[in-house]
Amino acid sequence: MKSDRVNNGSDKPLIGITMGDPLGIGPEVIVKALCDPELRRTARYVIFGMHDALEFAADQAELNRFWWREPYDGRPRVASGVLVADFDDLPQPGVNGRHQPDELAGRASFRFVDEAIGHLKSGAIDALVTGPINKAAWAKARYSFRGHTELLARRLERRRIAMTFIADNLRVALASAHIPLFELRNRFTIGLVHQPIDLLDRALREWFGIERPHIGVLGLNPHAGEGGLLGDEEQRIIEPALALARNANIHVTGPLPPDTAFVPHVLSQFDGLVAMYHDQGLIPVKMRAFDRVVNVTLGLGVVRTSPGHGTAYEIAGRNKANPGSMIEAIRLAIRFAKARRNSTQSATVVAR
Amino acid sequence: MKSDRVNNGSDKPLIGITMGDPLGIGPEVIVKALCDPELRRTARYVIFGMHDALEFAADQAELNRFWWREPYDGRPRVASGVLVADFDDLPQPGVNGRHQPDELAGRASFRFVDEAIGHLKSGAIDALVTGPINKAAWAKARYSFRGHTELLARRLERRRIAMTFIADNLRVALASAHIPLFELRNRFTIGLVHQPIDLLDRALREWFGIERPHIGVLGLNPHAGEGGLLGDEEQRIIEPALALARNANIHVTGPLPPDTAFVPHVLSQFDGLVAMYHDQGLIPVKMRAFDRVVNVTLGLGVVRTSPGHGTAYEIAGRNKANPGSMIEAIRLAIRFAKARRNSTQSATVVAR
Repeated sequence: MKSDRVNNGSDKPLIGITMGDPLGIGPEVIVKALCDPELRRTARYVIFGMHDALEFAADQAELNRFWWREPYDGRPRVASGVLVADFDDLPQPGVNGRHQPDELAGRASFRFVDEAIGHLKSGAIDALVTGPINKAAWAKARYSFRGHTELLARRLERRRIAMTFIADNLRVALASAHIPLFELRNRFTIGLVHQPIDLLDRALREWFGIERPHIGVLGLNPHAGEGGLLGDEEQRIIEPALALARNANIHVTGPLPPDTAFVPHVLSQFDGLVAMYHDQGLIPVKMRAFDRVVNVTLGLGVVRTSPGHGTAYEIAGRNKANPGSMIEAIRLAIRFAKARRNSTQSATVVAR
Repeated sequence: MKSDRVNNGSDKPLIGITMGDPLGIGPEVIVKALCDPELRRTARYVIFGMHDALEFAADQAELNRFWWREPYDGRPRVASGVLVADFDDLPQPGVNGRHQPDELAGRASFRFVDEAIGHLKSGAIDALVTGPINKAAWAKARYSFRGHTELLARRLERRRIAMTFIADNLRVALASAHIPLFELRNRFTIGLVHQPIDLLDRALREWFGIERPHIGVLGLNPHAGEGGLLGDEEQRIIEPALALARNANIHVTGPLPPDTAFVPHVLSQFDGLVAMYHDQGLIPVKMRAFDRVVNVTLGLGVVRTSPGHGTAYEIAGRNKANPGSMIEAIRLAIRFAKARRNSTQSATVVAR
């Protein structure tokens, strides 16, 4: 966790933001989000992107330019404020004016992230916030990564990661995400369930500053299996994963009946939840606060957040996008970066 | 749908309410709910239960007795107000004072429902609202029915039924309910998905008075399969079920990505939703309005509603239960009974 970050004379964390797909709502939500005075006061920013796209979005939203621009040279220097590291060598995508998956846009959005990860790895930036990319655009540009999470895991050489979603005080880590529901049957193991418990516990302690977090773990089946009548995965897999976690001194409760886990008087007992599959976690998260959902990747050893939405081509370029999730993603990135810096400085205190 | 109901000189519908498990919160939520002046003004009631349990609950809640009592003789007569049809031949369960699954309680709660179904079938009552029973108590009393829904389907000789949950303006019919999640794979057929669409469409037209309901049908997989990348059940099973529904002139849209189906701006486009499995429907329903969830069985040919909660032994007998769901269950039963009566009276209009 040693950092070779150059502090540039500022104690404010330096947050890297990738612009995402140039044809999506990424440029718009970024310029709108960074108008927030609190965000600007508490951190410095480098946007990896294309100046033209950002300026177009700002013009549409009638925002005054609050950044300065430099061509990207591999070593962005930010003393304060907001720097746009402009990839002005890239060709402009979407010449026909349509907002849809596009090869050039895919190549551009990949490049922003790829470069930013290098700076994240070296410690030149304290956290990374990724604007939305389009998976089909990446596929058109022949990248084999399904999305950000897979690319980050590969570049940072991490295999134990967990997609986690945060909406207000609701924090949900997923045991599984982008696989067909019934295929989960073949991958549903004790390790799969234990991993997000362990990673969420660390994040709640180290990033959220909760001394002894209480984690609720959902069942897989209706009524959490009702004692085996409605499925045995709770007994065969989830209970042993909970036992492992308790042995590691993690405070866990479960398996919880999924349908009541998100009811206020149950939810209020927990600092975070672990859901077994994509929609078990994301239905309640998006229902709670659709415009403020943040995606956080746990287990990378670095801070990466992202708004919970996609490129939203259908409203892109029309000044209709809500920057709420981007604002929250940046806010959490700052919070985690500060917590991480503090824990790095008080070096010898190693958790557990 | 011909009714041989004896009107007893009143136009108010006669609602049958079964007390549920004597050791659960059924007696308490029933006496609390029927204090509601609007409910008392708009219908007549017969409670199939045990007078002592109801009186105990009313005493604890400091409610004046608003009913009269008659021993149950197989032919309850209700001119107005609330009659307690007292099964005073049944032994009192739970002599040790504990609130838990109990054989005598199971026998009693089964008997209430069993008798009430007879009156529902004959048309002597216009609708049935069932208080919560405990499945383990029924098992102890050696009844082979898993719960109310199975018993009703058998006695009313209906095979095509759909569990449906209502919380405020959120109405969700389930394609499957109490089976292990991964076992659904073996039962996931076009008919299974089509049936709740068809039944929900009828209910929305006939009971809710919506002329041409718009029904949203959820996908099974994350992102509704993302064009086949994350599962093929959308293409193999759900799409054909939607095609069947469209052929029958039902207005359906789907398969919807499950995680955004319950977000306000999506939800507002639909009069009702069809969910593929228990928790996909019940997580959002209970999250929306835990204290007002109503369970409705569609396809019985008669009206049956129920509060969405169980016996809640842990708070039973302590005047802590919230009657909100019971109030809503009774309110909907009245509404549906009236709609059904009107559609029976305007006899020759046969839907579709």
